[in-house]
Amino acid sequence: MTDTTSPRRPRPDRAYLDNGGGARWHPLARTAFLQAIDDGWADPRRLHTEGRRAAALLDGAREGVASVLGARTEEIRFTPSHTASLHGAVAQVARARRRHGSDVVVGAVERAALLHAAEHVTAPHGGARTVVPVDRVGRVDADAFDAALTDGVGLAALQHANGEVGTLQPLEAVHGAARARGIPLVVDAGASIGHAPVPTAWDVLAADPADWGAPAGTGVLAVRQRTRTVPVGPEDPEPWAPGGVSVPAAFAAAVALEAVTQDLAAQDARRRALIEHVREAVAAIPDVEVVGDPTERLPHVATFSFLYVDGEALLTELDRAGFAVGSGSACTASSLEPSHVLAAMGVLTHGNVRLALDRSTTEQDVESFLQVLPGAVERVRAALGVEGL
Amino acid sequence: MTDTTSPRRPRPDRAYLDNGGGARWHPLARTAFLQAIDDGWADPRRLHTEGRRAAALLDGAREGVASVLGARTEEIRFTPSHTASLHGAVAQVARARRRHGSDVVVGAVERAALLHAAEHVTAPHGGARTVVPVDRVGRVDADAFDAALTDGVGLAALQHANGEVGTLQPLEAVHGAARARGIPLVVDAGASIGHAPVPTAWDVLAADPADWGAPAGTGVLAVRQRTRTVPVGPEDPEPWAPGGVSVPAAFAAAVALEAVTQDLAAQDARRRALIEHVREAVAAIPDVEVVGDPTERLPHVATFSFLYVDGEALLTELDRAGFAVGSGSACTASSLEPSHVLAAMGVLTHGNVRLALDRSTTEQDVESFLQVLPGAVERVRAALGVEGL
Repeated sequence: MTDTTSPRRPRPDRAYLDNGGGARWHPLARTAFLQAIDDGWADPRRLHTEGRRAAALLDGAREGVASVLGARTEEIRFTPSHTASLHGAVAQVARARRRHGSDVVVGAVERAALLHAAEHVTAPHGGARTVVPVDRVGRVDADAFDAALTDGVGLAALQHANGEVGTLQPLEAVHGAARARGIPLVVDAGASIGHAPVPTAWDVLAADPADWGAPAGTGVLAVRQRTRTVPVGPEDPEPWAPGGVSVPAAFAAAVALEAVTQDLAAQDARRRALIEHVREAVAAIPDVEVVGDPTERLPHVATFSFLYVDGEALLTELDRAGFAVGSGSACTASSLEPSHVLAAMGVLTHGNVRLALDRSTTEQDVESFLQVLPGAVERVRAALGVEGL
Repeated sequence: MTDTTSPRRPRPDRAYLDNGGGARWHPLARTAFLQAIDDGWADPRRLHTEGRRAAALLDGAREGVASVLGARTEEIRFTPSHTASLHGAVAQVARARRRHGSDVVVGAVERAALLHAAEHVTAPHGGARTVVPVDRVGRVDADAFDAALTDGVGLAALQHANGEVGTLQPLEAVHGAARARGIPLVVDAGASIGHAPVPTAWDVLAADPADWGAPAGTGVLAVRQRTRTVPVGPEDPEPWAPGGVSVPAAFAAAVALEAVTQDLAAQDARRRALIEHVREAVAAIPDVEVVGDPTERLPHVATFSFLYVDGEALLTELDRAGFAVGSGSACTASSLEPSHVLAAMGVLTHGNVRLALDRSTTEQDVESFLQVLPGAVERVRAALGVEGL
């Protein structure tokens, strides 16, 4: 394959429609990674030519990410993973803010890693974790969030968009309310950067290279210079990534981010049209609920839940038919629990399917999927003995 | 370059003699990584074909590492870095052992990351950190270590070999003493695995892929099934590496480890002869101290310190002449402090140079270095105005 503008399709007989968090590598990420293995394999902390060359690549990566995120270069940190970014951001901001208060306010459909991080910094310090509920499309009420920002709140966290259902959050209103009270806002933009315009309403922003086609094993964190943080682990020269990060991975993350940002508008329109088509077509299948906000949403994600269907069985059935799909926070090997996101929205938590399209997804992929889906649902329902319900 | 048995030499006019911690990639690590980008790019926690394929690669990597380390597959964890392995091991074992005691016993020449991790688990809990001193070659006294293992000690830590000066530690005696008292021993084998026979005297063993020619950004930790650990961070399905690790990096680490283990004896003899030659030749330069045990040592590391020489200036001078060398824990960009290892040994802490040879290092590289070294030392001394001293 010599096409360098769209991600590789390693198996043309399959359609990979689960490009959220673990997306296929962008071809430029691959090129950049290979270049950086040759030029940036050394430890960037060493003082010799090879070390300095690796350090220069890492600095270049930081600059590239900063320019896309609208941040200063010195505000960008690379971390070992998106989860590590969220854990670190919550822990370090909470520690810096402890004399102002130990309470934390979060949205109900934040990532599990963020909810756990909030629990970890509140419970041992007698702080309270306030969870702001969401409506049926998964959006937090900005007024309710505002009302939760009382005295004693050390930090607040709200995602840019929900990665499971695609709904955009009222970031500007919530950030405005938080700023007015001097409370730093941690924004999880792990599902949106590379797919939607970069938000400006944040004090700390976490972005996930694995979501825009760069290698897993690296996270990106932007911390405004005005936002204080205090390291929490053992003393280390790099408290956001003790031991350092992979220079080739960081370099590939930056190159891929710059690439996907350049044609964001065109890709947005193309994928948005495909997703609208999916949402309409799926809604015609019996006993289904198409979830998430219909318009204020990520352009590449569609999510729906089927009544009388076991999610894992449906995933397996679709996989057998050649389609890799996701299922929100549910149905990963490590968690077969119902999605806390869908539960908080008050929608069907079982029989859930999520599509996340990347740049290589074709109209044909989507049409083939839509042809296969009703039969797959029927077969799973039949196996459960609910045929004809 | 088509040679697949020795690491790539990207610039034939230079000799890279700093293969400790940030070694050049082993050619099989590169091959394995590229294969795993194609087969193992997906999130191994997903249930579809692509996810399961990545999970299978990760399981295979775990198996491969286990067989080399003499551990069970389920005892192997991948972490984000060697530093993260040490931080995690000390924190999780200390927490599991807290009801037995909060004190920690460590050797004086452990890695800074381990010393800081020990400080972090003792100070906040009223525990004491006992540092067992070393002799002039950098070896801890096994009897003194034994005597420090009193009631109230939660865990002990001793490296397999010191990465700065090469000295092997009396691991079996210390592990025997610790086992007799039921105290788990954390062993930092980050400088030795891939270069020396794998030790068996450990309860937790940390190994560093970046040291044996695999990508940085991954660490390896082996935890005996009998050794209890309790996670310390926010709740997470993967408490040793929240968010997971890079599957291609883990796979490359395993493949490279199996490769370097296969011809360990031959490589050991070859590099040991080169290092002995270096130690003899350097000892003939005026006002130099060749440090570390002359025989009970790593086969690929030589370290020496020059009187009346600034270490950073000497590194720069050698770099200009085409030789990349290290300088112990000193003289990295992040730490220009004198090495705590050399200080604990009571030897010269300044003007320090460390060579770490990899499999591609030739006799010619070493001879050229030895020809250049005396002149470089003289020039640096002249610049300091100590010529003729």
